[in-house]
Amino acid sequence: MFRPFRPDRPAFLAEILDTLTERGRALLGGRTDVPLMAAPDLAQLAEVLLSRRGEAAGVALADSLGRAYAAAARDQRLAFLILLAEKFGPDPARATEAMNAVTHGQAGALDALHAASEPRRQELFRRINQAPGGTQILLQMRVDLLDALPEMPLLRPVNDDFVHLFASWFNRGFLSLRQIDWATPANILEKIIRYEAVHEIRNWDDLRNRLQPPDRRCYAFFHPQLPDEPLIFVEVALTTGTPAAIAPLLDLARQPIGAHEAATAVFYSISNTQRGLAGVSFGNFLIKQVVEVLRAELPQVQVFVTLSPVPGFARWLETMRRDETGQSLPAPLREALTGLDVPGWEKDPDRATAIGAALVPAAAFYFLSARDRRGRVLDPVARFHLGNGARLERLNPLGDLSPNGLRQSHGLMVNYRYALEDIERNHEAFAERGEVVASDPVRRALPAQMTS
Amino acid sequence: MFRPFRPDRPAFLAEILDTLTERGRALLGGRTDVPLMAAPDLAQLAEVLLSRRGEAAGVALADSLGRAYAAAARDQRLAFLILLAEKFGPDPARATEAMNAVTHGQAGALDALHAASEPRRQELFRRINQAPGGTQILLQMRVDLLDALPEMPLLRPVNDDFVHLFASWFNRGFLSLRQIDWATPANILEKIIRYEAVHEIRNWDDLRNRLQPPDRRCYAFFHPQLPDEPLIFVEVALTTGTPAAIAPLLDLARQPIGAHEAATAVFYSISNTQRGLAGVSFGNFLIKQVVEVLRAELPQVQVFVTLSPVPGFARWLETMRRDETGQSLPAPLREALTGLDVPGWEKDPDRATAIGAALVPAAAFYFLSARDRRGRVLDPVARFHLGNGARLERLNPLGDLSPNGLRQSHGLMVNYRYALEDIERNHEAFAERGEVVASDPVRRALPAQMTS
Amino acid sequence: MFRPFRPDRPAFLAEILDTLTERGRALLGGRTDVPLMAAPDLAQLAEVLLSRRGEAAGVALADSLGRAYAAAARDQRLAFLILLAEKFGPDPARATEAMNAVTHGQAGALDALHAASEPRRQELFRRINQAPGGTQILLQMRVDLLDALPEMPLLRPVNDDFVHLFASWFNRGFLSLRQIDWATPANILEKIIRYEAVHEIRNWDDLRNRLQPPDRRCYAFFHPQLPDEPLIFVEVALTTGTPAAIAPLLDLARQPIGAHEAATAVFYSISNTQRGLAGVSFGNFLIKQVVEVLRAELPQVQVFVTLSPVPGFARWLETMRRDETGQSLPAPLREALTGLDVPGWEKDPDRATAIGAALVPAAAFYFLSARDRRGRVLDPVARFHLGNGARLERLNPLGDLSPNGLRQSHGLMVNYRYALEDIERNHEAFAERGEVVASDPVRRALPAQMTS
Amino acid sequence: MFRPFRPDRPAFLAEILDTLTERGRALLGGRTDVPLMAAPDLAQLAEVLLSRRGEAAGVALADSLGRAYAAAARDQRLAFLILLAEKFGPDPARATEAMNAVTHGQAGALDALHAASEPRRQELFRRINQAPGGTQILLQMRVDLLDALPEMPLLRPVNDDFVHLFASWFNRGFLSLRQIDWATPANILEKIIRYEAVHEIRNWDDLRNRLQPPDRRCYAFFHPQLPDEPLIFVEVALTTGTPAAIAPLLDLARQPIGAHEAATAVFYSISNTQRGLAGVSFGNFLIKQVVEVLRAELPQVQVFVTLSPVPGFARWLETMRRDETGQSLPAPLREALTGLDVPGWEKDPDRATAIGAALVPAAAFYFLSARDRRGRVLDPVARFHLGNGARLERLNPLGDLSPNGLRQSHGLMVNYRYALEDIERNHEAFAERGEVVASDPVRRALPAQMTS
Repeated sequence: MFRPFRPDRPAFLAEILDTLTERGRALLGGRTDVPLMAAPDLAQLAEVLLSRRGEAAGVALADSLGRAYAAAARDQRLAFLILLAEKFGPDPARATEAMNAVTHGQAGALDALHAASEPRRQELFRRINQAPGGTQILLQMRVDLLDALPEMPLLRPVNDDFVHLFASWFNRGFLSLRQIDWATPANILEKIIRYEAVHEIRNWDDLRNRLQPPDRRCYAFFHPQLPDEPLIFVEVALTTGTPAAIAPLLDLARQPIGAHEAATAVFYSISNTQRGLAGVSFGNFLIKQVVEVLRAELPQVQVFVTLSPVPGFARWLETMRRDETGQSLPAPLREALTGLDVPGWEKDPDRATAIGAALVPAAAFYFLSARDRRGRVLDPVARFHLGNGARLERLNPLGDLSPNGLRQSHGLMVNYRYALEDIERNHEAFAERGEVVASDPVRRALPAQMTS
Repeated sequence: MFRPFRPDRPAFLAEILDTLTERGRALLGGRTDVPLMAAPDLAQLAEVLLSRRGEAAGVALADSLGRAYAAAARDQRLAFLILLAEKFGPDPARATEAMNAVTHGQAGALDALHAASEPRRQELFRRINQAPGGTQILLQMRVDLLDALPEMPLLRPVNDDFVHLFASWFNRGFLSLRQIDWATPANILEKIIRYEAVHEIRNWDDLRNRLQPPDRRCYAFFHPQLPDEPLIFVEVALTTGTPAAIAPLLDLARQPIGAHEAATAVFYSISNTQRGLAGVSFGNFLIKQVVEVLRAELPQVQVFVTLSPVPGFARWLETMRRDETGQSLPAPLREALTGLDVPGWEKDPDRATAIGAALVPAAAFYFLSARDRRGRVLDPVARFHLGNGARLERLNPLGDLSPNGLRQSHGLMVNYRYALEDIERNHEAFAERGEVVASDPVRRALPAQMTS
Repeated sequence: MFRPFRPDRPAFLAEILDTLTERGRALLGGRTDVPLMAAPDLAQLAEVLLSRRGEAAGVALADSLGRAYAAAARDQRLAFLILLAEKFGPDPARATEAMNAVTHGQAGALDALHAASEPRRQELFRRINQAPGGTQILLQMRVDLLDALPEMPLLRPVNDDFVHLFASWFNRGFLSLRQIDWATPANILEKIIRYEAVHEIRNWDDLRNRLQPPDRRCYAFFHPQLPDEPLIFVEVALTTGTPAAIAPLLDLARQPIGAHEAATAVFYSISNTQRGLAGVSFGNFLIKQVVEVLRAELPQVQVFVTLSPVPGFARWLETMRRDETGQSLPAPLREALTGLDVPGWEKDPDRATAIGAALVPAAAFYFLSARDRRGRVLDPVARFHLGNGARLERLNPLGDLSPNGLRQSHGLMVNYRYALEDIERNHEAFAERGEVVASDPVRRALPAQMTS
Repeated sequence: MFRPFRPDRPAFLAEILDTLTERGRALLGGRTDVPLMAAPDLAQLAEVLLSRRGEAAGVALADSLGRAYAAAARDQRLAFLILLAEKFGPDPARATEAMNAVTHGQAGALDALHAASEPRRQELFRRINQAPGGTQILLQMRVDLLDALPEMPLLRPVNDDFVHLFASWFNRGFLSLRQIDWATPANILEKIIRYEAVHEIRNWDDLRNRLQPPDRRCYAFFHPQLPDEPLIFVEVALTTGTPAAIAPLLDLARQPIGAHEAATAVFYSISNTQRGLAGVSFGNFLIKQVVEVLRAELPQVQVFVTLSPVPGFARWLETMRRDETGQSLPAPLREALTGLDVPGWEKDPDRATAIGAALVPAAAFYFLSARDRRGRVLDPVARFHLGNGARLERLNPLGDLSPNGLRQSHGLMVNYRYALEDIERNHEAFAERGEVVASDPVRRALPAQMTS
């Protein structure tokens, strides 16, 4: 490695850097018993990295700062993030000057305003990114920031800068789609196990059951800088028809079919893995590319649907049953839904059938008519798929009788359908007019007296 | 592919896109006999891509715009670039509002100014980049723009946006170093032949002679999005001492030495390949990483030098000899240099020796004392290496007696030395005080009466 | 695929092949409900494959035979193997002729004898191997044959032909060494779990604990034709000293050390995976190449030892204690060893210490002096390592207190040491004079009154 | 590396091996100024490698022998090959004993005869093959042997052993097909240039013209042990119809078509590269697999033909014209062919047309009726393709007007057609009945008075 500084550097810096060198060695060797750097030192190092001196020391200095941040104590990291908010924003003098030029109608002034008002931390982040492992450090900073953000709104501009840079760096054009299968390296597979957020993968047998059979697929986006880190992945089942329940799909003992016997591809789980990339959206691109990949490989597969959870349904229904929403459930429905208060209702077939029948119109109302204060569809999963241009295809009561499924939606699951020829029209209806595109059966399930 | 638009789109767009589809097909098939799109249509397409509709159509629309640009006639491309300058800058209303907020001292207003004043074309470029091949299209746009820029200063802001985005996307952290050798794919090797800018590679035998012998190396940076395109490459000779002339290094008949017999690594050629990336600097990083790679592989190699051309020397010397600079050459020197006016002087050993001896003090002056109007060192290659922290090590008259070498520098070549422990100090001396760090022999070559 | 036969082929063959085609399709689709081929049909197909017609139909026919064998019922496979023994040996007429030529002293006759007496099944096996997957089919045939061999000595020549061909095809020059680590594909790792024969790998966490820590390694030989099948693998622990017990090495909670802190490499498990390759020996080559790899990577590692089980010890000791061998244990030893009859002795520290002390001289006798009827060292693991040129380094009572360890060797483990400079001398001493090379402590442990 | 021998080895061996070690080092360093080993020493080393000691020293000793052979002088290599023939054949005692057992009707004796009569050099070759680079050494030995064989028939048994082992090791199941294109490493491409045996590749532009256009393909077989050595390769042109001449296919200025516009695949050149593998046939397998690959990728390609030279035609025609064959050409034909004696006839259109018309019936006779003493078709290329089951499709006079084409066949080229559904029938007709399957036009071209 380069020795990054000359002998006559200021004392404080010498100290910092001697420490750093030692820590560098220590970090590389896996030890953690090193003196830790405090936030002001980190900020000082950041200033050096932004200076002309930083240009020359280049990668070595960026590397030092990254390691020092990674090794710093939690409170010092947070203090450093606050310093980023307070001291590494736009240069006020430069911004003012640029604003004056605009005000005076100077030629090209408007074009120059953007560069002149760039927060200094954006350049800092770009320089940190030059070091090996820099991207990971920045993702870690963002995670630290997200932890603190709810309590510290002053960090919001720093957060915005992260989102801006990450959206540019993790541009869809830089991502590559890879299939995850049983020949994928174990260090990647264990991340699939860890990050699966929808239907927990209990162990390696469960994982294999989702990857190895001929009627199962999994695809992920990767970024070249993070070759062992799937950024987002989707699990797909190839089936003969649109499934109404999750348990049969995950059954370890089920009989697989041949891929060429399938007519339908079911996206039954989609999970993001990098919390540091929150706000940088990949799901839309992933689903659409997987549809294209599957169409090319299996032309006879014509139907692309999800089997999705309804995470907001039970909470909303609770408020409806308590009449807290100003809207009311028709009496027979309300009556039928009292069965939900009997623990274990889902195990009694008659009761379950009756409740299932009552959940359907309630769910139709939940999706088609209920809205939050900002006028939005209530369900976050619905917002994602409808925003992508999918259509709400079918309501499946008793679709997920796991404890989690019962808790969040009384077992309700739904299918969203991606019909390529309608995606853009659906998206526009939803995005511009808030219109939920749904199949006829879903529409007809809406009780006449409940159209809001 | 997605059908990107709904049926009721405006007629002109339908037309554009029908054309596009056809062109798409045609482009894929390699034909060019298709109706071409004019600049206003391209701009319209760009507007759609930036709209909400563009979000949904996503990659497909970006792809269409990219292909349409690539297929457009030269004048229409240029007209489109002008539209980018005129219509896709910052939104003035949004910028004004943000400026007002700053002026009124609104909390967070300064932080918001940057985003509010972003030229719309930056987001446009990011979206074009989402399509397969998008990066290549953007690089092509930049090349087109650079062709026109000298005549059309109004394109400068567009150029700035390109540089800004490319610097972020081609961040050193995203580049990977690869060795180029005789087992490298031919489609990459032919680019090495094509892009070598310093000492032309005449044919495949010449190329092999620079790659295959045990005492030759070549390294390049690659970006994951352009896997077959070396962005910059450096050619290295492993030698026993610091060479004073280029011809022996390139001699097809020379006897190679074993890599482990070498004491010196000579960077004898460094070439950028992507004109579209002009202004995004890789050379500094490349040289330093190659030094690290070689030190790890061949610890006995202790000296890292260049053998570099001096492209500005002959032109400068001409002005000196004409007394146009206000400085004058000592009379004996001036006298000795009249020999340069005798064609073929380099083939007469006595004459060549005499002239060589006279060129050395002149060159010392050229590097150490002569400056341009902005106070800068005259030689662009010197500015590059000195700016990287290298030291001017040795002046080699008669180092390159090729027609090109004679034309640009009367055969003079120089060595710059990269001594890792001095790089930062050298860089700072040069960058902050304009000081040229040179070896003692070079300093001593400066005629006493010529210190400026 | 080629249609391998012409329309006017004999009826029986048409039938066989129609069936085959159907089965082919079925096999590819994963179904097994197909009419099965009987042994005489398989033999008929083999005759065709050996005929001139077989030359032309080539790969397709070989493929058909392979699939038909794989799909055949167990008894028909066995019947086919018997036909291979009876009908596909050397051609008696050709062999006799060649023998006559030798007898008459014909020039070159001796050289020709070998080819003339080649069993026809060798060519058959070579032709089967031309088909994709042919190698796997042949390995399966061998497994089937090994199952039957003890009962059917007439299969021995077929077995010999397999060994001969496999030894040639799986020549060490065709094998490649690959490290198995946590980035290895899961479909290979699950084979490591399945085939570990010495210390069972209980689950994926156990596996990771043997692959991922910086002081653990695993290496395997692969054949290009079986890229997902490790043929043999060895698990290695990097330690500071020679370990005396297995449990601490496998402990999930242990603290790893850095690879560069290690002084010793411990081969604690070596397992073959392909029963079909029984008799083709890789272990010797594997250990020696891993030693070379580790020496290159970690020059400070100077000691290469095993930590090995002693599978024959308990059984032998039982016979000794019953005085069945004609040799007798010294009385104090015999007395001390009665403790072995107390269940759970290993959990009582005093008792365990006493028994351990008594096991050492018994073990020294077992290795150094006891021999089987053919005069061989009794322990198969000892024969392997001593035959490779290793030295018996240390006896470790209480080295493996798992149920299996107690059962086979009352917990005894041993270290064999591979000292490269002695390997050849050790090998020769063992191979030519049956001499067991052992360290001084092991020699001294041998009770004076027990030298046989 | 292992030190392969113990200190008390016999003096001569110590000397040999000391030398070897030095040479080993020297070879690795690329020098050749080392003492060379004589044939008896090589043979002694071979004996050691075959001994029990060889087992232990294993790879290291095999490596030494390989290097010593590679470094030996030409005459010593040849002397060593003679020693292989004389001293490393079957063990006469062992063979005699096995023969006696057969004669006495001993059970299993016939099965044992093969192993007992194996030439000792087969095991020697297998052991040499264990060393890195062993395969290459053996291929070199074979080349040396082939050079000497015509003069030294006593080497034939050694040659047979090579063929036997190579046929087993280079079994089609172990080969992999790879496409050669413009992204193939240059070190492989230069071998394509060097080994092209049919239509010389003049330079890298000529090569690119055969690889890069969308209507050109090249495929080769590789063996895992020789990853940079194509064993055999075929060049393919995708065309709309069956071509009658080679020049348009190789024209650097021609306009390519899209691969999906092609209806015909033309195998216009097939070349073996490894002289050491002479007698181990790959061509049949290569053509058939390439047909399968192309059918899968380009289903609209329905016709697979060659455009082949006729290397024996001019020589045969000469003898016919001299009436040396006992058969005679019909007078008008003979008359027309006198035009061949006019140098430059091919440049005179009228003359060329007339001669072309006369060459066709002569060629029909050459292929369909003329036979050599052993009753075989005269043309070696015809024997290859007809033996593979192809059909003689068309005679193309004036197909190759290059000097070489004129010399060997007066410009005649032919197409052989591979129609998969007929391959086996054609092969059988040719192999069993010597019948040349030809198209109707070819048959009709045979002059009535010349049916032999």
